[in-house]
Amino acid sequence: MNASAPASIGEEVLLARAFLCRVAESACVPLWDFVRREGPVAAAGAIRGGAVPREVAAVTAARRASADPEADLEAGLRYGMRLVVPESPEWPHFALAALEAAVRRLLPSYRAGTERRRDGGDPVPPLALWVKGPGDLAAAAVRGAAIVGSRAATSYGEHVTAELSYGLAARGFDIVSGGAYGIDAVAHRAALSAEGQTMLVSAGGLDRPYPPGNAALHERVAESGLLVTESPPGAAPHRHRFLTRNRLIASLATGTVVVEAAKRSGALNTARHCQVLGRTLMAVPGPVTSPMSAGCHMLLRGDNAERAVLVASVEHVLEAIGSAGEGIDAPESPDPAAAQDQLRQRIDLLDSRARRVFDGLPVRQAAREDELARRVGLPVVEVIRALPTLRLAGLVESTDEGFRLAAAFRKRSQPPRRRVPNPDTSTAVGPSPGAPT
Amino acid sequence: MNASAPASIGEEVLLARAFLCRVAESACVPLWDFVRREGPVAAAGAIRGGAVPREVAAVTAARRASADPEADLEAGLRYGMRLVVPESPEWPHFALAALEAAVRRLLPSYRAGTERRRDGGDPVPPLALWVKGPGDLAAAAVRGAAIVGSRAATSYGEHVTAELSYGLAARGFDIVSGGAYGIDAVAHRAALSAEGQTMLVSAGGLDRPYPPGNAALHERVAESGLLVTESPPGAAPHRHRFLTRNRLIASLATGTVVVEAAKRSGALNTARHCQVLGRTLMAVPGPVTSPMSAGCHMLLRGDNAERAVLVASVEHVLEAIGSAGEGIDAPESPDPAAAQDQLRQRIDLLDSRARRVFDGLPVRQAAREDELARRVGLPVVEVIRALPTLRLAGLVESTDEGFRLAAAFRKRSQPPRRRVPNPDTSTAVGPSPGAPT
Repeated sequence: MNASAPASIGEEVLLARAFLCRVAESACVPLWDFVRREGPVAAAGAIRGGAVPREVAAVTAARRASADPEADLEAGLRYGMRLVVPESPEWPHFALAALEAAVRRLLPSYRAGTERRRDGGDPVPPLALWVKGPGDLAAAAVRGAAIVGSRAATSYGEHVTAELSYGLAARGFDIVSGGAYGIDAVAHRAALSAEGQTMLVSAGGLDRPYPPGNAALHERVAESGLLVTESPPGAAPHRHRFLTRNRLIASLATGTVVVEAAKRSGALNTARHCQVLGRTLMAVPGPVTSPMSAGCHMLLRGDNAERAVLVASVEHVLEAIGSAGEGIDAPESPDPAAAQDQLRQRIDLLDSRARRVFDGLPVRQAAREDELARRVGLPVVEVIRALPTLRLAGLVESTDEGFRLAAAFRKRSQPPRRRVPNPDTSTAVGPSPGAPT
Repeated sequence: MNASAPASIGEEVLLARAFLCRVAESACVPLWDFVRREGPVAAAGAIRGGAVPREVAAVTAARRASADPEADLEAGLRYGMRLVVPESPEWPHFALAALEAAVRRLLPSYRAGTERRRDGGDPVPPLALWVKGPGDLAAAAVRGAAIVGSRAATSYGEHVTAELSYGLAARGFDIVSGGAYGIDAVAHRAALSAEGQTMLVSAGGLDRPYPPGNAALHERVAESGLLVTESPPGAAPHRHRFLTRNRLIASLATGTVVVEAAKRSGALNTARHCQVLGRTLMAVPGPVTSPMSAGCHMLLRGDNAERAVLVASVEHVLEAIGSAGEGIDAPESPDPAAAQDQLRQRIDLLDSRARRVFDGLPVRQAAREDELARRVGLPVVEVIRALPTLRLAGLVESTDEGFRLAAAFRKRSQPPRRRVPNPDTSTAVGPSPGAPT
């Protein structure tokens, strides 16, 4: 999806969401709630006209006249960005579902006026995301592993970050981080060295790389991976935007590793978001004599609300978030027959919707959600709902191009047969006599 | 208690237990069970005569003729040792209760022959302990904090060990360790530097300090603290004796800190004993790049059956095992009136037996269990049973000389008054205007 060719989304939706991104600060619960109820186009129109509930007016009045979505889309295009919106196929529905669930829990108290904006940033989905780079955001997020930590990293922290990031990127994970100095920068760089994927989630506009000293790194990430932000072009990286940005890092990754963090590090804010979103929180221990490991030890002890899993190696991270790695060719099972029995059992356990999606999955060429919906004759939303189940069962894998049958079905060994062969795929699913194991 | 003056215990009990220590290897469940049923004197006689059940004969036949308890007691006396037996006032009943509880759980399967001797050493109380040094074993054990770890410690491990050991010893804990090179030696030395107490639990006879290079350290510990072992004089430090020794370290301390341990370190055996005995297990994290911290990280992750609490400072250890530190002068409560209310409430909650012992506690000069029993007119065993409750309530403190009222009752601020003044102590219990703290 590209801002210059929004044919399948509708120009007015893009313009409306570009306006909504600009008219209020990110992570604004009343605005999100209003858009959810009214739809983006009607919501944008009402805000523009000033005919909105008091709590929405309060957060939009200052900018409703000056916001210029056409100019933002043009500026984005100039800088090579695209606006990814919930209506785009690239929208990371699955990754953001936890934010939506979290904000729904908050809504009643917000509406009653008993909930105040949280310092650390409210859990609420973004209204749209400005994205730059060749990666596919939805596909990247399902195999995202965040690595975050102190800007003032030690050489120990940098060493461990490089090991983890390189190892995870080489195994197919998309390394999510915040583009800062220290741990973040090493995480991105090591993923690039591994020729893996990396996603840099920025607090300000993508045309304002921050810190400026990392501008070259931002460019390198944009060449092969993804730059992502909620902030419209030109937005400065204010402190508040870092805190709300952290919830995106937490939600766009299956799990977050804090490698080094002082006792008041911003990485602990990301850790808090992780906990709220039910994401796997991991921390690397270090010398107890190092203040840069003190925050990690707090997380490992559970001194505050968050408790992290101790990870000392790539293997530990895989153990903690391994189910995210379905895009990854797992090592051959020592007992292929048992592994296939397991897959068969999992297929038998699928409900009818998931089963229907499973039967429509292509074997080699991946298909996007909307294409799958056409193949199996289900609404897109039903397909999107079924995919997490299939992913957790290890039956589907996601690629940059979309979804396809898991690698186990393409193995040389006898794969479990799908009971209802799909005309598109059945030729490749059955046993291949004489194939070597 | 001294081997040369066993008047109150009975020479024949001492001789019997010296024989039992010699006739079989330590941590032998069938022998312990036999002694428990028959009593030490009858059990020793039966073994000497060969008239014992098959499973006892199996473990005692080889040495029953050659064992010479008189010679062992004489050798012990020559080296300044004493034999502490369950019948002595110095026996650490409270510390060893968990071993007794653990072996009682095992007994049915042992008797049925379905339980085999465990490689890591069975949880079973010792039959007697050879002890050297001016400390009181029972008093030392209730404020024991074990610090153990790798012989091949790194300078990081040695640094952290020194910090923890010095800090805990300065706060009144008795530092328990195994006298080996590396972490153990630093733990003992730092406790000595703090002019604190330390207990060295040895695998072999106390006249055979191991490793020989630490002989001077053993001597220094014996001057102010305690050397402890199950092995009779002259016994070599065989591998099996290290493993069974580790259960004594775990039980003679309220909690054990593993500072550094490789993946197959003996310290992990001590950790296992800790877990079996329900003792607090703590581990210090370190660089994930250090093989000497890998065992600690295993314990912190709970990779095996044991899961340790992460400790990075003396404060963390105090938080984990603080209730053991009743012998310690706690910092003044910020609200002395509230603290005294609390003490009063705890006194009111005591059952009649504990209340009676409490009322008989001396204020300054500590009294041993048997003296307390005389003062309050209860059997010694009742006094021993009541003391843990009083200790946990913070009402009693133990010193090298025995037990006395907790420090709170000696403070300048108005102490809670005991309702039934004891003639021996009442003069000192009330407020002492102008008395120094």
